[in-house]
Amino acid sequence: MNIFHTDRIKSILPQIRSFVAEEIIPLEKDYLHGTFRALEPRLHALRSKVKEKGLWTPHLPESDGGLGLTLTEFGIVSEELGRSPLGHYVFNCQAPDIGNMELLHQFATEAQKHTFLEPLMRGEIRSCFSMTEPEFAGSNPVNMATTAVREGDEYILNGHKWFTSSADGASFLVVMAVTNPEAAPHKRASMLIMPATTEGYTLVRNIKIMGDEGDSYASHAEVRFENCRVPAANLLGNEGAGFALAQHRLGPGRIHHCMRFIGIAERALELMCRYAISRHLAPGKPLASRQSIQMWIAESRAEIDAARYMVLHTADGIDKNGAQAMKESISTIKFFVANMLQHVLDRAIQVHGALGVTDDTVLAYWYRHERAARIYDGPDEVHKTVLARNILKSYGYDIEQ
Amino acid sequence: MNIFHTDRIKSILPQIRSFVAEEIIPLEKDYLHGTFRALEPRLHALRSKVKEKGLWTPHLPESDGGLGLTLTEFGIVSEELGRSPLGHYVFNCQAPDIGNMELLHQFATEAQKHTFLEPLMRGEIRSCFSMTEPEFAGSNPVNMATTAVREGDEYILNGHKWFTSSADGASFLVVMAVTNPEAAPHKRASMLIMPATTEGYTLVRNIKIMGDEGDSYASHAEVRFENCRVPAANLLGNEGAGFALAQHRLGPGRIHHCMRFIGIAERALELMCRYAISRHLAPGKPLASRQSIQMWIAESRAEIDAARYMVLHTADGIDKNGAQAMKESISTIKFFVANMLQHVLDRAIQVHGALGVTDDTVLAYWYRHERAARIYDGPDEVHKTVLARNILKSYGYDIEQ
Amino acid sequence: MNIFHTDRIKSILPQIRSFVAEEIIPLEKDYLHGTFRALEPRLHALRSKVKEKGLWTPHLPESDGGLGLTLTEFGIVSEELGRSPLGHYVFNCQAPDIGNMELLHQFATEAQKHTFLEPLMRGEIRSCFSMTEPEFAGSNPVNMATTAVREGDEYILNGHKWFTSSADGASFLVVMAVTNPEAAPHKRASMLIMPATTEGYTLVRNIKIMGDEGDSYASHAEVRFENCRVPAANLLGNEGAGFALAQHRLGPGRIHHCMRFIGIAERALELMCRYAISRHLAPGKPLASRQSIQMWIAESRAEIDAARYMVLHTADGIDKNGAQAMKESISTIKFFVANMLQHVLDRAIQVHGALGVTDDTVLAYWYRHERAARIYDGPDEVHKTVLARNILKSYGYDIEQ
Amino acid sequence: MNIFHTDRIKSILPQIRSFVAEEIIPLEKDYLHGTFRALEPRLHALRSKVKEKGLWTPHLPESDGGLGLTLTEFGIVSEELGRSPLGHYVFNCQAPDIGNMELLHQFATEAQKHTFLEPLMRGEIRSCFSMTEPEFAGSNPVNMATTAVREGDEYILNGHKWFTSSADGASFLVVMAVTNPEAAPHKRASMLIMPATTEGYTLVRNIKIMGDEGDSYASHAEVRFENCRVPAANLLGNEGAGFALAQHRLGPGRIHHCMRFIGIAERALELMCRYAISRHLAPGKPLASRQSIQMWIAESRAEIDAARYMVLHTADGIDKNGAQAMKESISTIKFFVANMLQHVLDRAIQVHGALGVTDDTVLAYWYRHERAARIYDGPDEVHKTVLARNILKSYGYDIEQ
Repeated sequence: MNIFHTDRIKSILPQIRSFVAEEIIPLEKDYLHGTFRALEPRLHALRSKVKEKGLWTPHLPESDGGLGLTLTEFGIVSEELGRSPLGHYVFNCQAPDIGNMELLHQFATEAQKHTFLEPLMRGEIRSCFSMTEPEFAGSNPVNMATTAVREGDEYILNGHKWFTSSADGASFLVVMAVTNPEAAPHKRASMLIMPATTEGYTLVRNIKIMGDEGDSYASHAEVRFENCRVPAANLLGNEGAGFALAQHRLGPGRIHHCMRFIGIAERALELMCRYAISRHLAPGKPLASRQSIQMWIAESRAEIDAARYMVLHTADGIDKNGAQAMKESISTIKFFVANMLQHVLDRAIQVHGALGVTDDTVLAYWYRHERAARIYDGPDEVHKTVLARNILKSYGYDIEQ
Repeated sequence: MNIFHTDRIKSILPQIRSFVAEEIIPLEKDYLHGTFRALEPRLHALRSKVKEKGLWTPHLPESDGGLGLTLTEFGIVSEELGRSPLGHYVFNCQAPDIGNMELLHQFATEAQKHTFLEPLMRGEIRSCFSMTEPEFAGSNPVNMATTAVREGDEYILNGHKWFTSSADGASFLVVMAVTNPEAAPHKRASMLIMPATTEGYTLVRNIKIMGDEGDSYASHAEVRFENCRVPAANLLGNEGAGFALAQHRLGPGRIHHCMRFIGIAERALELMCRYAISRHLAPGKPLASRQSIQMWIAESRAEIDAARYMVLHTADGIDKNGAQAMKESISTIKFFVANMLQHVLDRAIQVHGALGVTDDTVLAYWYRHERAARIYDGPDEVHKTVLARNILKSYGYDIEQ
Repeated sequence: MNIFHTDRIKSILPQIRSFVAEEIIPLEKDYLHGTFRALEPRLHALRSKVKEKGLWTPHLPESDGGLGLTLTEFGIVSEELGRSPLGHYVFNCQAPDIGNMELLHQFATEAQKHTFLEPLMRGEIRSCFSMTEPEFAGSNPVNMATTAVREGDEYILNGHKWFTSSADGASFLVVMAVTNPEAAPHKRASMLIMPATTEGYTLVRNIKIMGDEGDSYASHAEVRFENCRVPAANLLGNEGAGFALAQHRLGPGRIHHCMRFIGIAERALELMCRYAISRHLAPGKPLASRQSIQMWIAESRAEIDAARYMVLHTADGIDKNGAQAMKESISTIKFFVANMLQHVLDRAIQVHGALGVTDDTVLAYWYRHERAARIYDGPDEVHKTVLARNILKSYGYDIEQ
Repeated sequence: MNIFHTDRIKSILPQIRSFVAEEIIPLEKDYLHGTFRALEPRLHALRSKVKEKGLWTPHLPESDGGLGLTLTEFGIVSEELGRSPLGHYVFNCQAPDIGNMELLHQFATEAQKHTFLEPLMRGEIRSCFSMTEPEFAGSNPVNMATTAVREGDEYILNGHKWFTSSADGASFLVVMAVTNPEAAPHKRASMLIMPATTEGYTLVRNIKIMGDEGDSYASHAEVRFENCRVPAANLLGNEGAGFALAQHRLGPGRIHHCMRFIGIAERALELMCRYAISRHLAPGKPLASRQSIQMWIAESRAEIDAARYMVLHTADGIDKNGAQAMKESISTIKFFVANMLQHVLDRAIQVHGALGVTDDTVLAYWYRHERAARIYDGPDEVHKTVLARNILKSYGYDIEQ
């Protein structure tokens, strides 16, 4: 409980926490030993329950069927949902769909909203976001080879992307492509909404990541666009606005992710404590009696709390003053929270010993899949450089890159 | 600027910041190369200016001539003052006097207040607090050999203490001594107010700490009590209440210290940035152009901000719900902030190279003297154990010690 | 090249290095995207080549068809083979078979050698070692519930084990079971050689570890023994000698593993350097131009070299004075080298960015599977405690456990 | 005991160890609470004893009255002497004199040797080495403003230096100055031997370092040269050879320092163990019973051993193949060992609690003064960059600076 817990939060949080604990976490075991697709019927049954409880798409305005939460409030909800890898999906606020909903909500035409956003908000379809290319360092978004050339009332899309998360089964992609190669570097690209049925589009593979190809929603695809014809009416926002839109997408997305990381870390700490108490080195001597484990519990508690305050203050600042005003904090939380997460997961696994590396707990899943937390949306080093540049600028020095 | 910045803070903080920058920091050089005593006339001149500006003893209620700040607000002030080793002294809110003022304010008799508290609040005298004994681990306060035996209307005090900070020149000591050896462990000790002129009291030495004996206020003494006769009227609070009072003293003291650490860290980061820009490896190539230094700047910024949020939320919790409710956080901030401080100071020194280890900047002073931050008021490991014990208790396990 | 490189090493090492680079590493891609079983025909073809080159079972005495290497020399070979997850298997010196070969070589009867050791040395069969039980903390080997009760000329074996590595497809198991429950704690267990065809033996599952069930040699099984009848003639060594034999098995095994870790780390450093040079942030600006990456390369080089010296000196000490004399070092290398490995792998992945978390390089495989390096054969904390106990004993203090 | 312990080492090491323990360490207390100058009579008495024992100037060839040790052997001796801050001085192998002895031995004319080297070897005089300038980053030795202009048979020396260690009381300085400003960057400077009595030379101050100005041998001076006339006959080596000579001086110097660091760390570990056993948290419960302290002891042991192996292998490589061949290792040990030292000292202080920050043990002295170990002779980051550059060169990439 802290000062960011509004009355609205106090009212819905216990419901969400119980739902995660009682309905979602019990499915994890089957997820860890099966496929996402096999689990979908049960997940969709849970989605119905969430709708019944009035907790559906909590990030959306009430007018769109959501809870009308502030970013800070949704961050707090995101932490709770993050306690299970399945939480956000069940509430239909999972990345990348949540980011696409936000984008479409703000920038789509009425027709685009009707076709793409509405079924997405209802949870009838899924979507994906296709930006990163294997040939270029993701941390420099100016590097991009995918092109969309206007021909009549269509764009001809050609390119090669990867880490197009959840492409497997998605109904449409939001694709970033260079439409204006002669423009200034940050004005070259646009976003296009492309139905997955478009000819010339291939899902090459679900990339095997840390031993896991995944499937359906839980996957990251390599895709190709070969002369895909996308109606010009599917342009999202203006031509050349791609980077600007992508920035819009990243701001709140950073909060969502970071609060999700905190939810993971809280769950890991809980598992660590429970196991430390229940596992005995000798009769009457649980792991929890070892001081090294006590130190890890205390350090994890401190690091998680610090991370949460950082993120909630950032969210609160965005709510009050906008993302631009919180630019430094938005860079800071990314590397700070991702590193905290890795520390806590590492300790939780060490406490669990051999069990910790198995998929008999959820820890190993996160250990594998959240290693990427220090990489995606910009690796730690990029965010630190951005932050240092801002700080040094305030002293009159500009880091030349 | 953050949500804890009240209107009152917004009004006084810029004044305090300017005063520290313009009046106090310029004295540092002489402090680093001279003695505290030699500096006293100039410090006392500054104290007069502080009084004139109406910023004197900011921690006290307005009725006592203070600013009537909440603990959170005073924490924010403490950060600003912490930017110089001389800041708190000039505002008469320096440890250990601030702790004694708080103790006396709450628990002293009217007579005690008149004799001891009032001149202290006016800055006419100094005081000290004598608890730690060289023969016992400070982290176990039950271990104590100093005794005060009641004889008529006096206590006969015998014992050996060290780390009695600022005893050199203090007018009185608050001494912790066992008065009730047969009572339960935490009810054995009492606090006595002893004038420094009491016969049998010896200041054995100012302990040489990290190369520095210090003097006057800036010192840590070893002292002996040999049959010191202390009037029973000088008993502070009840007999046997020593530990309870000491706990009272520690709660807000933790906030003061931690915010002071943050002030130090901010100053170190500022020095680091300025030097990184001004020092050139080659023409046109300042230290700030090196990525390793950029990483340190970013990491320091992140760690300082995280620490500040932690402490201010803790202070705010104490303001609203009392220290007992924030027990876990009070343990957490101590080790979290002290470690942050050490990291930031270490980086600042490394950026300064050879200059960093000299006393030509204030960094080496803090590097030496704040190493103790991870030790006094309980070493890191004790606070982590306390925190872990509380956490594990909530899962039903009690660490047996 | 260092002082441990004997003429024999100088002669064989280049051959092994080329073989690994040219014959084994090219198979990795198929291993990472397929099964071990599917790869076996090609691995066995390579095994034939190794035999032809006279490099087969390098750890064995020349009289047994090996290279007659010292432990130090074999350590150096193990590093080279460790550069690929498939290296040791191709040379038939893979754990757990190598440990079983060593055990049988030293302690088996002639009949046991004929039946079990000889086909193992020829690479015709595989074996496994069944000690760890899910119900007990592995770090306390006195905790064990599996029993073998003598009945006539048979033992009746009952129990539940896991992390019986490579049980899938193994011809026989060496099983640790309590035979003498009334004896002193370390004299209760014995080792029995049990054919995998024994009735009552079930391979419950290949445990899913970090997303990977594995198969065949590359697996870790949960197994059950229900009234398995094992001929008394299959007792390895004496009754009650189980722990003593297990200790024998661990000494050199620690060297093998640690040198394998170093091979992995060297490969990771090589991949890191190559990728840092080839991946460009912008034209003419490879990752290698970033100082943060340069720091990681230097730190990795330093840590790997330090680890190698530690292990080779330990091996050399064992060669000269026996494992007992090197007890402290044997504990030290385990935690020191496993932690080095984790640091180097983490940096290598960070340099590779998104590619690093995919299975398109071998790094993610090691990142997942070698997390266990800090756990198996005793977690870090157990080894540190053993080491500290030995050190403190030399000062006259015995840590009571 | 390890493979680098030759018979010669086995014969002299126990003598040196006893001498340090029995004769030198007992002086530390007076050193820590007094001045070096006050201690000199007693130190010189010990020097006579060292001569009597035939252990004087152990680094010199036997023909010059030394022990004729290899660099590796002297490294081992240096570790032993490093256990006390006074060790090297008593054996007359203290920096900077040892470096000057080596320089003069190799490059001085007979006349120079007679005047400067011989009394130095006999311990009758002291010397210093004046290179670093406050205005330039020491890590780029091309930056230097001190000039020596030839006029007839003299050089006119002008400049400003600092960190001229031990200038206070030194009979002569070896000064680095630009003699050939038009030459290639690394051929501009020369070394001149200048008697301290030269007119125009001023010792501005002993720099206050970490609270300590020091005095006599134990000091670091800021000095000025104003038209100092130095006979051309005092040129050391050739004109323009300054950097080349400085490099010569650094190679073995790195080994000396690193082994001295290891001696310090061993002593710190010993103090840590002894205190952990003797200090009780409660009756029967010494600090050593706490697992966190056990972890620190184990980690310190591991890190010290790793550091020692690294340095001895480097020394051995220099003995066999020369410093050039070991360039990478020479960079590696500097940062690796200095960081190990800081970790071990930090832990030792933490174990000692309040006592650890006082000068009642030698730990605080080292904590303060050896912070510079990560800075002098090039900060960590410079050595890591050098190492990374060499490694990346072997892959075909040259870091452009």
